[in-house]
Amino acid sequence: MNNKVLIVGTGGIGAYFGGRLAQSGMDVSVVCRSNYKQVKKDGFAIKSIAGDFSFKPDGVYRSCSEYPETADYLIVATKVLPEIDVVNIIKDAVKAETMIVLIQNGIEIEQEVAAAFPNNELVSSIAYIGVFQLEHGEIEHQAAGRLKMGVYQGGSSEKMDLLSAHFNKVDVECEVVKNIEFFRWEKLVWNTPYNPVSVLGGGVDTKVISETKTLENLCAELMKEVCAVAKSRGIVLAEDIILKNLQYTRKFPPYKTSMLLDFENKRPLEVEAIVGNVVRIARKEKIAVPNLESIYALLSSVDIKNRV
Amino acid sequence: MNNKVLIVGTGGIGAYFGGRLAQSGMDVSVVCRSNYKQVKKDGFAIKSIAGDFSFKPDGVYRSCSEYPETADYLIVATKVLPEIDVVNIIKDAVKAETMIVLIQNGIEIEQEVAAAFPNNELVSSIAYIGVFQLEHGEIEHQAAGRLKMGVYQGGSSEKMDLLSAHFNKVDVECEVVKNIEFFRWEKLVWNTPYNPVSVLGGGVDTKVISETKTLENLCAELMKEVCAVAKSRGIVLAEDIILKNLQYTRKFPPYKTSMLLDFENKRPLEVEAIVGNVVRIARKEKIAVPNLESIYALLSSVDIKNRV
Repeated sequence: MNNKVLIVGTGGIGAYFGGRLAQSGMDVSVVCRSNYKQVKKDGFAIKSIAGDFSFKPDGVYRSCSEYPETADYLIVATKVLPEIDVVNIIKDAVKAETMIVLIQNGIEIEQEVAAAFPNNELVSSIAYIGVFQLEHGEIEHQAAGRLKMGVYQGGSSEKMDLLSAHFNKVDVECEVVKNIEFFRWEKLVWNTPYNPVSVLGGGVDTKVISETKTLENLCAELMKEVCAVAKSRGIVLAEDIILKNLQYTRKFPPYKTSMLLDFENKRPLEVEAIVGNVVRIARKEKIAVPNLESIYALLSSVDIKNRV
Repeated sequence: MNNKVLIVGTGGIGAYFGGRLAQSGMDVSVVCRSNYKQVKKDGFAIKSIAGDFSFKPDGVYRSCSEYPETADYLIVATKVLPEIDVVNIIKDAVKAETMIVLIQNGIEIEQEVAAAFPNNELVSSIAYIGVFQLEHGEIEHQAAGRLKMGVYQGGSSEKMDLLSAHFNKVDVECEVVKNIEFFRWEKLVWNTPYNPVSVLGGGVDTKVISETKTLENLCAELMKEVCAVAKSRGIVLAEDIILKNLQYTRKFPPYKTSMLLDFENKRPLEVEAIVGNVVRIARKEKIAVPNLESIYALLSSVDIKNRV
């Protein structure tokens, strides 16, 4: 059947894409933490640029151990944070036939799951979307809404293709790609500058960054460094990626990055997935990344202070 | 007589050193802005590690034009900010015999005053002190309390020596030096890292910086860059200055930098005097200062956001 989906992590991303899969006819349940009560009672209300909709999950659980069925797809849409132990959180719902699908930011975020569940199919996916949870169960979808997915470390999978087809059926563009790692780096070239700079610059949106020459220059320098590190991993990004990112971002309406929203709401920041992992590769490969290093040091400190 | 002193800028620095000169027997008046009313009424109450004291200025004025006498010494102790036009502020009190004494932070901060008053003696002075204004007229002196001063662009001056003697008479160590520019750079090697990092790191004191390896490393990198820029100006700092600064700072009690205090109190930050001027020299001399550049971009943005 391949019809049963369990979503772990029901912030904006998990709720939105889970809701779409429910619309496509799949049987979608969710594991909730802070928003459990509200979602159990009323499900999700999703305000979307593509038309508002509601999403009543088939089951709402506090943990994977409560899920009474066997998930065909276990979708992980949590933030990537050192304190979120994904392996431990999902292990009770990972059965032999379960395909694990990570819809998460950053690079080199799949290893632990891959190592813990070596016999399960693992799909790595990137969301291109502006979506967040306003209040428990209230989701605001503001921009885009696409996915790219690929089998972790390459290859193909009919089961993944089926999931992708479900998304496309409900007008969520979901592209299956051969080399998802390439697209993770490509997305990182945007995320690594704009997210930290929006926070460290004192809480500035993309419009302010684009209109402040020194901040935009800093973003460009950070992009250069990310590209250099990517290259050491065999990922060759287009030569004009930096210019294109700058130009593309200049056209945004004033947009708060997800990291700035997390900062303003005193939530943990995805420092490691978006900056730390790049810096660690750079150090290992002896690539000089002074701007990344300084951003990393400052952002780590801000993240700690912001949680207090 | 050389006995008349007018202080312009009566935050912590101006009030403290002005009060000391009054104790030494000089006739000290002040020009106040925001704290005018309070100081006019009650003068300054100074809580000091060297013993509390009060300072009732001989005259309290709203502007230099109100000062009815001729100042032998006009001491400028304002912040160094683009919007503070020192030349314009002091011009009505600068007479032929007036020695102008700048007690201010940063480098290359004397040019405008030197150019505007080419026939006046100009003294450049650095304060080594932890002092700030708690409330209007209430000064808190927490650490150190020394001065170095020298004739701008070298040379000696009996009149300056007399001022220095007045300070020393009341146990304010005031050293007359030949090359004040050297000491400005030396102090900058501390100020340029610790001030911005304390703000950009999310509001961290020196103890947190010293105990956070990545932040302390960033400070060390910034110091290296400042030393390289200093060198291009013929200022050769001791080779162990970085290590000594780190070690010295590790021994501080948790100390909030003056920039962090300004930030927390929504006051303008001395971005240009402490970072911008160094960056501009580096650009001119084509010295790569990636860490200074990124700090400069972020701090400028934070400063703007913080004023709103």
